Amino acid sequence: MRIGLGQINPTIGDFAGNRERIADTIRRARAMRCDLVIFPELAVTGYPPQDLLLKRAFVQESVRTLDELQPLSQEITVILGYVEPNPGEGRPLFNCAAVLSQGRIVHKTRKILLPTYDVFDEDRYFEPGTHGRTWQFQDWTFGLSICEDAWNDKDYWKRRRYRKDPMEELVRAGADILINIAASPFHVGKIRFRREMLQALARKYRKPVIMVNTAGANDELIFDGSSCVINHQGEIVHQCPSFREDLAVIEWNGEAFQGGNGAPDHEEDIDQVYHALRLGIAEYTRKCGFTDVLVAVSGGIDSAVTATLAVHTLGAEHVTGVFMPSRFTSKESYEDARKLAAHLGIRWVEIPIDSMFKAFQQPLRQVDPSLRRVTEENLQARIRGNILMALSNQWDALVLSTGNKSELALGYCTLYGDMTGGLAVLGDVPKTMVYELARFLNREREVIPQRILDKPPSAELRPGQKDEDDIPPYALVDRVIRMYIEEERSLPDIVRSGIDPETAREIVHRIDRNEFKRRQAPLTLKVTSRAFGSGRRVPIAQKFRHPLAWPDEGAPAVEPSAHRDPSPSE
Amino acid sequence: MRIGLGQINPTIGDFAGNRERIADTIRRARAMRCDLVIFPELAVTGYPPQDLLLKRAFVQESVRTLDELQPLSQEITVILGYVEPNPGEGRPLFNCAAVLSQGRIVHKTRKILLPTYDVFDEDRYFEPGTHGRTWQFQDWTFGLSICEDAWNDKDYWKRRRYRKDPMEELVRAGADILINIAASPFHVGKIRFRREMLQALARKYRKPVIMVNTAGANDELIFDGSSCVINHQGEIVHQCPSFREDLAVIEWNGEAFQGGNGAPDHEEDIDQVYHALRLGIAEYTRKCGFTDVLVAVSGGIDSAVTATLAVHTLGAEHVTGVFMPSRFTSKESYEDARKLAAHLGIRWVEIPIDSMFKAFQQPLRQVDPSLRRVTEENLQARIRGNILMALSNQWDALVLSTGNKSELALGYCTLYGDMTGGLAVLGDVPKTMVYELARFLNREREVIPQRILDKPPSAELRPGQKDEDDIPPYALVDRVIRMYIEEERSLPDIVRSGIDPETAREIVHRIDRNEFKRRQAPLTLKVTSRAFGSGRRVPIAQKFRHPLAWPDEGAPAVEPSAHRDPSPSE
Repeated sequence: MRIGLGQINPTIGDFAGNRERIADTIRRARAMRCDLVIFPELAVTGYPPQDLLLKRAFVQESVRTLDELQPLSQEITVILGYVEPNPGEGRPLFNCAAVLSQGRIVHKTRKILLPTYDVFDEDRYFEPGTHGRTWQFQDWTFGLSICEDAWNDKDYWKRRRYRKDPMEELVRAGADILINIAASPFHVGKIRFRREMLQALARKYRKPVIMVNTAGANDELIFDGSSCVINHQGEIVHQCPSFREDLAVIEWNGEAFQGGNGAPDHEEDIDQVYHALRLGIAEYTRKCGFTDVLVAVSGGIDSAVTATLAVHTLGAEHVTGVFMPSRFTSKESYEDARKLAAHLGIRWVEIPIDSMFKAFQQPLRQVDPSLRRVTEENLQARIRGNILMALSNQWDALVLSTGNKSELALGYCTLYGDMTGGLAVLGDVPKTMVYELARFLNREREVIPQRILDKPPSAELRPGQKDEDDIPPYALVDRVIRMYIEEERSLPDIVRSGIDPETAREIVHRIDRNEFKRRQAPLTLKVTSRAFGSGRRVPIAQKFRHPLAWPDEGAPAVEPSAHRDPSPSE
Repeated sequence: MRIGLGQINPTIGDFAGNRERIADTIRRARAMRCDLVIFPELAVTGYPPQDLLLKRAFVQESVRTLDELQPLSQEITVILGYVEPNPGEGRPLFNCAAVLSQGRIVHKTRKILLPTYDVFDEDRYFEPGTHGRTWQFQDWTFGLSICEDAWNDKDYWKRRRYRKDPMEELVRAGADILINIAASPFHVGKIRFRREMLQALARKYRKPVIMVNTAGANDELIFDGSSCVINHQGEIVHQCPSFREDLAVIEWNGEAFQGGNGAPDHEEDIDQVYHALRLGIAEYTRKCGFTDVLVAVSGGIDSAVTATLAVHTLGAEHVTGVFMPSRFTSKESYEDARKLAAHLGIRWVEIPIDSMFKAFQQPLRQVDPSLRRVTEENLQARIRGNILMALSNQWDALVLSTGNKSELALGYCTLYGDMTGGLAVLGDVPKTMVYELARFLNREREVIPQRILDKPPSAELRPGQKDEDDIPPYALVDRVIRMYIEEERSLPDIVRSGIDPETAREIVHRIDRNEFKRRQAPLTLKVTSRAFGSGRRVPIAQKFRHPLAWPDEGAPAVEPSAHRDPSPSE
């Protein structure tokens, strides 16, 4: 039996486009003499469709598109994901996989385990399937499951999220091979983790496992693909490339596989992040209809990395660097930004902001004679935001916001200022990882001027300002972010890990009080296990303060949840 | 038996504050010789705690606070809501109600039906309880349920969301009286709907029903309270006031109730919206630690209504009106804004924007000689945004954004411009309802100058601009918003309701393509059945277009999802 892995990139709601993408892949698989071709979860609708699923017309289109694809299954069997209405009680829909064969639907399976955590909201829409169902094809029994269905093995997980185990049910029902169709988003470490988890299943049941994942990106989520074929000994027979579409063909005789590439080279985390961000930029711009982007280049590292990623993704001719100096901008910043733009070959626009700043200062001083430092600093950032948006309006170009995860976490950024933009490319990349990315981008030749990597980071909103005068060192900040945001660890626990109590408390406190800024932040490309955005839902008006339980420390005063707009310097 | 209804307003995560609020109410109920006092769902934590529930320390504080309250139940029995960890498999927590009596916990019930739609995400955190449990108190059997548990009666709902019916189970288990503790948010029509639904339950089972709801607001959600006592004939014995805390005491002898006020006067929708918005402003500012707010007064109706609501809520001395005229601002707008400020007695700040506008125009023209109309219009709005934020930074005052739901729906607003602010007071109020509110505010005397109600709305971003030159009439827009957003009706369905196909399509198209703006909008106070915000989750990069199924109309061209930033005039 020849099996095709149709690792495609659907666009949410683009039923005609997705149908053509699937049809084309079916035709190619047939041309490659496949007996079976497998597509990802919700291949017909794109993932995640979110509340579009509440529109009846959307669900009708999903069913209709499946109907339109049936004739293509005359000479090849097709497995693919779509949504179907639930005519009975309970949630309105089912997340389904259909098997098409000989021009009709021959089998259907409903997703049983519905992820409802992090970025996932599947209980919002779907009624769970009740049991795993097998399907007979040629001489074998296929056990079909959808994404999360494979993620609840009692021997693998310390604590199970669900009581059911669809994989166990499928094996009990006699499955010879386990097929899992997925829309499993990327974060650092996920590709290896997902693969090892599936290998453990294969070994446990002594059954081969084939997993077909989406490759693409929709809004904040990046789908890495990395579809794989694992034999009954748990060995990787084949892994599709990550971060791009693919059609792999593999041969199975009921015992062994033929034609795989073995496991891919062990990719570096930073290499994966680089490709993930490129894919995120590429798909967001393409699916929103943009060709061109604007990046505010300051001479600092965040904008240098953002601009370089944009050039690698869209081409230099589609990227404009906007340099907006003030009287606090150093000669070095100008030189570094200019050099970066020259290395990248991007269009250069230079608009000094001092005249606008003075135009604001004067009338504001008439209202209140002594302007606070926070006011003046934020004002500069917001003038830059206005200029970017004006150029965006002029040229129909998307503004890529340059802020990183560490700044967003601490609120060391200005709403409507440096937070301006449609997509925050580095919004889930901690500052220390931004440096790693810069070194990665420079691995062959110096694209980002070395001085940008060497000099201490500065917002340049007042004379001689350095980030680390205002906030704790980024290496510390990023350790706390990882523990507090990604791992949901408590403040005492963070302190026990060896971080100075006052510093830990300051960082956690800043993270807590700046929720209001993040609520209005641009879309952020998710690359860690917990990004700001739909995967992290925290009230703004709340007064929970982590108890500090270490010795010689009383309970902290309960402070009101602040809603100030502190500048980078506060 | 004397029963107290403790309709309180907890703050999310403020365990010490909530404990004192509950303890104080218990003491007062005891002083009023109550045998039993009932508090809302999650009274201990506040609702909705969202991802704070993922912090172990938060859940520990919930359990600890319950422990600390136990001693207060020596002479009175207490029912209240809190969260508890789930030690077994499945989701991490239970949404619980505890009964405290004689200094200890004598009964616990777990919520069975977990709302996961609109603004609710309970499946994200909670494992459902398995069955309804009764509890014996004095001579009677009490059936205890939590909010949604009462919302699934097969005779009441055309289509049930869940397969279980906890109320039926409680009655079968012999309950003499049904107690429902709730955190049920407000929208127009909800108070009546909720009450009638509970009355139907009482009539069906011929059992009295007592429902105790939260009164207060947390972020976008407003909890109206309106706790009620219904006798076994389905008659309202008592309804607590809406939109404020209350402790009502009612006497029950196992047959009849004594001491109720009967059903309240049938309140007008607009009256409810008025009180809901006041409560939303009051609680958001208080819980975030603000005393003062800024409102950009333009001489138009949205800012007039917003400023008036702010004054009614916070007092004139805490509200500043900021008037920011341009060369397009009419004399009438100035006069109307000035008169409004005088009527309200608020502080007046006037900052003309033309000098700043010129300061931007000049360098932008050096980069691109001919500025688009959209660029210039948005620029004016963003200069105003910058001024507001500068004053916010100067005075630690919260900016109340003045945009209404109709503008947000159509994207007839400027990101970082008039969308600037921490709270969009009217963000869920359609324009036609803004007018209703204005008339309501003027019902006794002219607070909002009549001319503001009479003149056609204008953004005044170019000479002689009128909203209805740019967009369809608001009466039409609001009908489509209601059908398309609140009722999830399809475009053909909207057309069948009698709206011109081209107009309907234009409105729906504008709603679809402006998701990117709403993603960065300020928090919006929810007053309709579907608000922008956490209750509506739509992808930005998506290509679903409603098929137009009316006669003599082909399929629409599939257009890319736009991410432009059209000004009010586009």
